[in-house]
Amino acid sequence: MTILRIAEIFGPTIQGEGAVIGAPTVFVRAGGCDYRCSWCDSLHAVDSEYRHTWAKMTTEDIWDEVERLSGGVPLTVSLSGGNPAIQDFGPLIAHGKSKGFDFALETQGSVARDWFSELSPLILSPKPPSSGEEVDWDTFDACVKAAGNAETVLKIVIFDEADYLWAKEAAARYPELPLYIQPGNHTPPPPDAEDAKIDMDGIMHRYEWLIDRTLADRWFAPKILPQLHVLIWGNKRGV
Amino acid sequence: MTILRIAEIFGPTIQGEGAVIGAPTVFVRAGGCDYRCSWCDSLHAVDSEYRHTWAKMTTEDIWDEVERLSGGVPLTVSLSGGNPAIQDFGPLIAHGKSKGFDFALETQGSVARDWFSELSPLILSPKPPSSGEEVDWDTFDACVKAAGNAETVLKIVIFDEADYLWAKEAAARYPELPLYIQPGNHTPPPPDAEDAKIDMDGIMHRYEWLIDRTLADRWFAPKILPQLHVLIWGNKRGV
Repeated sequence: MTILRIAEIFGPTIQGEGAVIGAPTVFVRAGGCDYRCSWCDSLHAVDSEYRHTWAKMTTEDIWDEVERLSGGVPLTVSLSGGNPAIQDFGPLIAHGKSKGFDFALETQGSVARDWFSELSPLILSPKPPSSGEEVDWDTFDACVKAAGNAETVLKIVIFDEADYLWAKEAAARYPELPLYIQPGNHTPPPPDAEDAKIDMDGIMHRYEWLIDRTLADRWFAPKILPQLHVLIWGNKRGV
Repeated sequence: MTILRIAEIFGPTIQGEGAVIGAPTVFVRAGGCDYRCSWCDSLHAVDSEYRHTWAKMTTEDIWDEVERLSGGVPLTVSLSGGNPAIQDFGPLIAHGKSKGFDFALETQGSVARDWFSELSPLILSPKPPSSGEEVDWDTFDACVKAAGNAETVLKIVIFDEADYLWAKEAAARYPELPLYIQPGNHTPPPPDAEDAKIDMDGIMHRYEWLIDRTLADRWFAPKILPQLHVLIWGNKRGV
């Protein structure tokens, strides 16, 4: 029996970013991550100090909660984290799909899984220099390959000029993948705060900067999107 | 030689709403409309009182301006209005596509054109009761048919509960089309103002209402999106 560590399950709400922005979704946020990005906005699901807050759930437990929240009406389930790819979500995806649900998953691309091919979409989010992490491109390539014919997209968070230049190079490796770029939240919530203060003006300012920088460069490949949930709800958790 | 009435051409900027939200785009805003929605946010391109401000341009004139603004680098050209379908954009689309550009077009679906089949996407935006207009569904069906295999999406602006209920019925007519709903701007700019005041708190409040209403209803088909350009630039024109 598969036991998964789950930081939170919530929704239905809208997906706030990336390829399925605006889509009604239930989030299943996995606990645990193989990265520790300097600006992580979900430390409560990453830092092992918070491990005692993660529930140990079977695939069936998780599915019961998704069904309760959605009323059994099919929607897209968003698997996030932490890094959901370090755990085995294959059985959950297979079961949910048999009930008419879709599954989106976002990961940094550090662990490839054969069940990536069941996702719609697989969102690969390689982390830029400001994160303090470094991408292993061989493993990242293996993730793209594991997805096969499943819809796969790139999403890159950008905090500064160095990240921007890095994003252009990273994206150039995968010209066939739809590309999304977004400004980071430079005032992420501390892991023990449910609704921490946020610099909304600064966030809008950075979004405008990213739009101006990209368009002035005549780099027209990416869609340039904000984090809608941040604009609506700030740092509030569970929405 | 085709002569078109053009209210404005501007960009590159991002598409602020709907199916290609976040995509770099040059807008070509046609002058003239067969509707007169009560809450129209582009009256300067609709009200014939402003007809003297619309340029008479050939297809070549328009293309030259798109090329100047984009630097000749292919992107999506957004044809808007007014109702761009009352004029013949077929030659512009054919020429631009031969140069590698894509064309998106938004219309209320009151005039069908054979060149709809060249769009990616055709955005059909049937107007809800609060507009004061009424949809001719036979003509609307003809628009869907004219698009053929071209990507076609529905986008419905919602101001109130009556609009919401109407949107659900309208969308049920086209279950196969991707669906986008968005709150309207209840403080649209007057036609002679370049940067009119806007009720941003009210706009965010209405967006939250629409999310809550839709999700509480377990209506998971639509993507629920704001007008990003309004959140960033308010009622400023030409961005």
